[in-house]
Amino acid sequence: MEFEYSQKVKDLQVKLTRFMEEHIYPNESLYEEQLDKHDRFAVIPQVLDELKHKAKEAGLWNLFLPESEYGAGLTNTEYAPLCEIMGRSAIAPEVFNCAAPDTGNMEVLVRYGSDEQKEQWLKPLLNGDIRSCFSMTEPDVASSDATNIQTSITKVGDEYVINGTKWWSSGAGDPRCKISIVMGKTDPDASRHEQQSMILVPLDTPGVTIKRMLPVFGYDHAPHGHAEIEFKDVRVPVSNLIWGEGKGFAIAQGRLGPGRIHHCMRTIGAAERALEELCERVSEREAFGKKLADQGVVREWIADSRIEIEQARLLTLKAAYMMDTVGNKEAKSEIAMIKVVAPNMALKVIDRAIQAFGAAGVSADQGLAAKWANIRTLRLADGPDEVHRRAIAKYELAKSQERREMHARERTF
Amino acid sequence: MEFEYSQKVKDLQVKLTRFMEEHIYPNESLYEEQLDKHDRFAVIPQVLDELKHKAKEAGLWNLFLPESEYGAGLTNTEYAPLCEIMGRSAIAPEVFNCAAPDTGNMEVLVRYGSDEQKEQWLKPLLNGDIRSCFSMTEPDVASSDATNIQTSITKVGDEYVINGTKWWSSGAGDPRCKISIVMGKTDPDASRHEQQSMILVPLDTPGVTIKRMLPVFGYDHAPHGHAEIEFKDVRVPVSNLIWGEGKGFAIAQGRLGPGRIHHCMRTIGAAERALEELCERVSEREAFGKKLADQGVVREWIADSRIEIEQARLLTLKAAYMMDTVGNKEAKSEIAMIKVVAPNMALKVIDRAIQAFGAAGVSADQGLAAKWANIRTLRLADGPDEVHRRAIAKYELAKSQERREMHARERTF
Amino acid sequence: MEFEYSQKVKDLQVKLTRFMEEHIYPNESLYEEQLDKHDRFAVIPQVLDELKHKAKEAGLWNLFLPESEYGAGLTNTEYAPLCEIMGRSAIAPEVFNCAAPDTGNMEVLVRYGSDEQKEQWLKPLLNGDIRSCFSMTEPDVASSDATNIQTSITKVGDEYVINGTKWWSSGAGDPRCKISIVMGKTDPDASRHEQQSMILVPLDTPGVTIKRMLPVFGYDHAPHGHAEIEFKDVRVPVSNLIWGEGKGFAIAQGRLGPGRIHHCMRTIGAAERALEELCERVSEREAFGKKLADQGVVREWIADSRIEIEQARLLTLKAAYMMDTVGNKEAKSEIAMIKVVAPNMALKVIDRAIQAFGAAGVSADQGLAAKWANIRTLRLADGPDEVHRRAIAKYELAKSQERREMHARERTF
Amino acid sequence: MEFEYSQKVKDLQVKLTRFMEEHIYPNESLYEEQLDKHDRFAVIPQVLDELKHKAKEAGLWNLFLPESEYGAGLTNTEYAPLCEIMGRSAIAPEVFNCAAPDTGNMEVLVRYGSDEQKEQWLKPLLNGDIRSCFSMTEPDVASSDATNIQTSITKVGDEYVINGTKWWSSGAGDPRCKISIVMGKTDPDASRHEQQSMILVPLDTPGVTIKRMLPVFGYDHAPHGHAEIEFKDVRVPVSNLIWGEGKGFAIAQGRLGPGRIHHCMRTIGAAERALEELCERVSEREAFGKKLADQGVVREWIADSRIEIEQARLLTLKAAYMMDTVGNKEAKSEIAMIKVVAPNMALKVIDRAIQAFGAAGVSADQGLAAKWANIRTLRLADGPDEVHRRAIAKYELAKSQERREMHARERTF
Repeated sequence: MEFEYSQKVKDLQVKLTRFMEEHIYPNESLYEEQLDKHDRFAVIPQVLDELKHKAKEAGLWNLFLPESEYGAGLTNTEYAPLCEIMGRSAIAPEVFNCAAPDTGNMEVLVRYGSDEQKEQWLKPLLNGDIRSCFSMTEPDVASSDATNIQTSITKVGDEYVINGTKWWSSGAGDPRCKISIVMGKTDPDASRHEQQSMILVPLDTPGVTIKRMLPVFGYDHAPHGHAEIEFKDVRVPVSNLIWGEGKGFAIAQGRLGPGRIHHCMRTIGAAERALEELCERVSEREAFGKKLADQGVVREWIADSRIEIEQARLLTLKAAYMMDTVGNKEAKSEIAMIKVVAPNMALKVIDRAIQAFGAAGVSADQGLAAKWANIRTLRLADGPDEVHRRAIAKYELAKSQERREMHARERTF
Repeated sequence: MEFEYSQKVKDLQVKLTRFMEEHIYPNESLYEEQLDKHDRFAVIPQVLDELKHKAKEAGLWNLFLPESEYGAGLTNTEYAPLCEIMGRSAIAPEVFNCAAPDTGNMEVLVRYGSDEQKEQWLKPLLNGDIRSCFSMTEPDVASSDATNIQTSITKVGDEYVINGTKWWSSGAGDPRCKISIVMGKTDPDASRHEQQSMILVPLDTPGVTIKRMLPVFGYDHAPHGHAEIEFKDVRVPVSNLIWGEGKGFAIAQGRLGPGRIHHCMRTIGAAERALEELCERVSEREAFGKKLADQGVVREWIADSRIEIEQARLLTLKAAYMMDTVGNKEAKSEIAMIKVVAPNMALKVIDRAIQAFGAAGVSADQGLAAKWANIRTLRLADGPDEVHRRAIAKYELAKSQERREMHARERTF
Repeated sequence: MEFEYSQKVKDLQVKLTRFMEEHIYPNESLYEEQLDKHDRFAVIPQVLDELKHKAKEAGLWNLFLPESEYGAGLTNTEYAPLCEIMGRSAIAPEVFNCAAPDTGNMEVLVRYGSDEQKEQWLKPLLNGDIRSCFSMTEPDVASSDATNIQTSITKVGDEYVINGTKWWSSGAGDPRCKISIVMGKTDPDASRHEQQSMILVPLDTPGVTIKRMLPVFGYDHAPHGHAEIEFKDVRVPVSNLIWGEGKGFAIAQGRLGPGRIHHCMRTIGAAERALEELCERVSEREAFGKKLADQGVVREWIADSRIEIEQARLLTLKAAYMMDTVGNKEAKSEIAMIKVVAPNMALKVIDRAIQAFGAAGVSADQGLAAKWANIRTLRLADGPDEVHRRAIAKYELAKSQERREMHARERTF
Repeated sequence: MEFEYSQKVKDLQVKLTRFMEEHIYPNESLYEEQLDKHDRFAVIPQVLDELKHKAKEAGLWNLFLPESEYGAGLTNTEYAPLCEIMGRSAIAPEVFNCAAPDTGNMEVLVRYGSDEQKEQWLKPLLNGDIRSCFSMTEPDVASSDATNIQTSITKVGDEYVINGTKWWSSGAGDPRCKISIVMGKTDPDASRHEQQSMILVPLDTPGVTIKRMLPVFGYDHAPHGHAEIEFKDVRVPVSNLIWGEGKGFAIAQGRLGPGRIHHCMRTIGAAERALEELCERVSEREAFGKKLADQGVVREWIADSRIEIEQARLLTLKAAYMMDTVGNKEAKSEIAMIKVVAPNMALKVIDRAIQAFGAAGVSADQGLAAKWANIRTLRLADGPDEVHRRAIAKYELAKSQERREMHARERTF
């Protein structure tokens, strides 16, 4: 039991924090300004490329890939506190090539991709030259239950033909987004968890149509955005299938573990920044002749926020530690726990900060409302809270069952 | 103690509900479509005028004005359940000429306006020909403490000169918005609550500049919007002052009572509709082989939502009843209570509905996210929850003090 | 819609409040002292009889019985605010012959009892000469599901033979407790809700054994107490059956409505008194150089308590009003709501008061801990919160279903 | 960052768990039965001595004392998971000589006691021959503010004379309790934190009177209990003073750190056991034709309980780790956090278990109600939640201030 970051991590924290202060925070509003006024999905703010270049030069690049020849070789536990720092700014993760859904997609390709797939898609992704999206959720069914998925992937000759509609394919609005990993069914008659497959579909393939970009609480999240995509008789070579037919569910399980934990880490960073802003606000703002910090419930907010952040951080680190030591599968209850804890915690902290900022809190002036809206989606993305809570309970009830059986056996002897 | 609406109210509920179902709900998306794509503040959707015409014809017009020669002569208690119905749709209140901030402004003019002011501004407002805004909140100070207000209203000859910056002047984006009621200080040296005055400022007066429209969680709320307005050496005739110098605080107190309660009524309607949508969703959507309604925590959500709505409605009705019977001032603790209760309740109910709708809930497809964002502002508008809670506690502590003094007196004899 | 108590009720409130202040509060600790030190169930504190005598003389007797020749002729709506006042003191309800479970039992006898049963048991109960208990809950099954009940009531000749074990028969510890209404199955093969019957069993019948008294959070609630009772081959004449075979479930439904609402009313009174004590405490106690009332979260506690009490009271009054106007059955969703709301609300308010009183709050010095423990049982008695929430949700989902069917019909034409 | 217990700790966990299963759990009810029926404070259940003997033999003795020649040499971090296991049973801590308030008192004597004091009091305490109490809280003042303390310790010749009344001196009811550490003021005119001193007062000193034992929610917690003690002209030799005059506050700070964290550890064990019992109950109990585990909100309870326990445990371990590595003083914000988190968490978990057990939950049959009541006191003991939250907030605001000053300095250059 050791609660200190290693020296290597501490050094990277310092370096990353300095980079954030020198390059990221001062450019947040510039990024927003450089978006095209008429078509916010048309161009990528120029400052982004400059920042990516700087991050690469500084060696702050691809920190997310654990135990891999491609990444920085950090464990999940080591990456966690760094990912948290990146999560403090909405524009930061991409600067360090650590943004969703690319990180998850790159993990899939590293683990399950063929050499050809790696060459064609992993390489430019690792290099930050292109971006990618992940097409799993469908509008007409509860997609948290993967067996509901309706998109079909049918083998015809040496091609797969894909038909279906996906939505919430995040990042698909980005002009640099070239490839999607699409989840669909290759065999609806196989056993429950072997019906699904994942396949690589270049977005310029005929039959792929972006129907619309979906807003989140009024935000378009341009230039990345969240797309509804129609796949109509889309044909790709059989070599585009990842790993093998029927492996979709297994890949999803493997992909979602790290993906979920990255979201949680970033969420903790966002909450930490909101708490800093809250403390600053209440130390400076006065009403009724006293600083807000000296009034009513404000200090309870601060204390509860600190307590909640601290606990969420520790649980996230533990989940990361278990992923590193016993594997994503064994860590699944812990991953489910932080998947529930982190967004709910951050929403509470940010909501308190909004309340402290008053009208400025709900507008664009503080960024708090945008942050809140973004994190609100994480109570649904990759499965709603309710599904994760159920998984945790199932695991507890199974442990309880084991205990009862063990005691029954003991009583027999 | 009687918990039934009068026959008059029941008839109006039926009439209004029918109007909503025939004319409002089916036109909600058309309204959105008729907004100008390039400048969403440029035009008013044509369907609005058609609906206003129909509402006027149906006698569903100006229902909000209690005990007045101008309105429908309903008490607050009678208006409450009708206002609730209007609150079910974001576009409804204006259709019936019952939208904020016009209702509050009309109340001010009815109560405190001169004949000239009534003729010039109240008449077209009652007629639905123009719209208005209310400029009280300022960006640089905690405006929940009215003594913080910095805008100055200085008498120079037969004019008042206004200087200051206001924000969250809701409705100022509307091209039909012609007039603002502006709160400022005429005498910074007067006693705490007699420094402020209110004055009528036509928006086309030289020196009035709309600096920007403020978004709410990514929504622009066009075409009304929330404006930041600069008043720079703005000159209006002395006759534009409402009631008299130093009466600003008193008018605000009078105005905010009904204004707050209207917001609460509408909020209850919004929550009620969200609960209906939630029930419908979970009755139809399946996951893991069962209707959502038959899973986990969903029925707790429904029961708690019903319980919370019901309680908030009763408290709102009681507050309205007290306004009608003992006056806005005596009802101030009850008004403060519903000001805290109604938005917080609705946010919980809508958040549950969002969760039940999954990804559709956070996007524009259900309207739930927009509703949530809109109501989130009500925890801040007209004073944050914290200020209202403090007022309630102050009142309770005063009652406690009285009880102790009474008992002390009794013990003496 | 009218939120004022009638003059009749107001007069009774004044009278009752004066009685509480003159006779009840000053004798609360005397009552406790008069309990036998060695066998707390042995004697009834003498002061109780004196107080009952005074209450009868003052005409404050049997106020609970609505629309009946026997009681005071108050409606549930009229009784509610009076019952609330009685709920302020644990010893008060019995003083006015309005204590559970006697009130529920008397209602059963008034509604469903034969003339003989009324003569023998209702009369002395109305007179306050004896007390009674209600034996429904069983230790081995989830009794919130009445079909689980295992006690058998078997007709043998002109007697019924009763076998089974009941617990939480409240009041059975009282030496004056002479009679129990026992719920059991007369016909396990009848349809789900016609298997049960209720029967009158005098506690001195052979075969009736009080096995033990059950504590509640360490309290014995002497001299009434909560008994576990064994019924072993207990024989009573067939005329002891209430209403008829198979009517047990129907009687329970009828009995529990008023019973539940009385508990809720009393609970509101308990919360109201706790809030008064909290306000007094924080106005007088100092720490860190300031009154507690001027520190941190204390005023939030007060405001939230006031808000929660007020809402619970209104909902309880509405439920009472519906029982009076449309009947207990139609009011069942409202009754379920207050059954959930009132105890949970009171537990929160009292817990805050405990916190304000510090160590004194958890001990016997303030009575707050005892009050909390007592009310905690109400989240379980007559069905746990979860069962009531489920009933409310079921009702909402049925309404939703109706709406959908109606709209479908409308669309067809 | 390492989330695994050391092999040494794991071995002790196994050993301790086995001891609990073989010796503690099977004797819990026997312990209760062996209490004297008439005077529950008269005798110590015999089974206790037998168990203590066994624990000593097994080497499971005095595990709590970190870095000391006297104890087992475990760090706080190592002791935490063991203390948690002991916390699963109310009778366990004393069996292992790890019960409050003895542990805290022994820590005080180890750190600050003179050789003579160690010989006379520490030795028999370490040996489990006598017990002790700690007299700090006073009935008439808010004792969370140590400057309020009114008990006086006045030097007269070569004696100190003690006058004052203390309450909540836990353990003073135990016939083996021989000594109290009493906090009082030696110099009311010294600076705020140097007025207080601590002194050893044998309970058989003339002038020491146990006025009464205080119940906690109806429980007497016999044979230990919580005493109100009067100290009237109590005279002890000057050598009984601990460390020196004016050191009382410093000792309290040192004492309370470990004391608080031990309570938290035990609380986590209590919650863990409650969750186990909850899982077992809902797996076995049926209602409405289904296991409770398959109904409504039950799995949410389980998942949330697991999440909350896990987070509280990690935060407690981190606080222990900081106490070990940077010292109790530097760890004060973390200690304050777990002081708030652990009891509140456990109360929620146990309350859910109570609800799952229904009527059995509030009685003595499950031990849940007793556990709840006991832990409820921990939201007050050693300072109420509110005081600890304030301390956390103060620390956060100070960090915020530092950040702002640093940025201001940076901007200057």
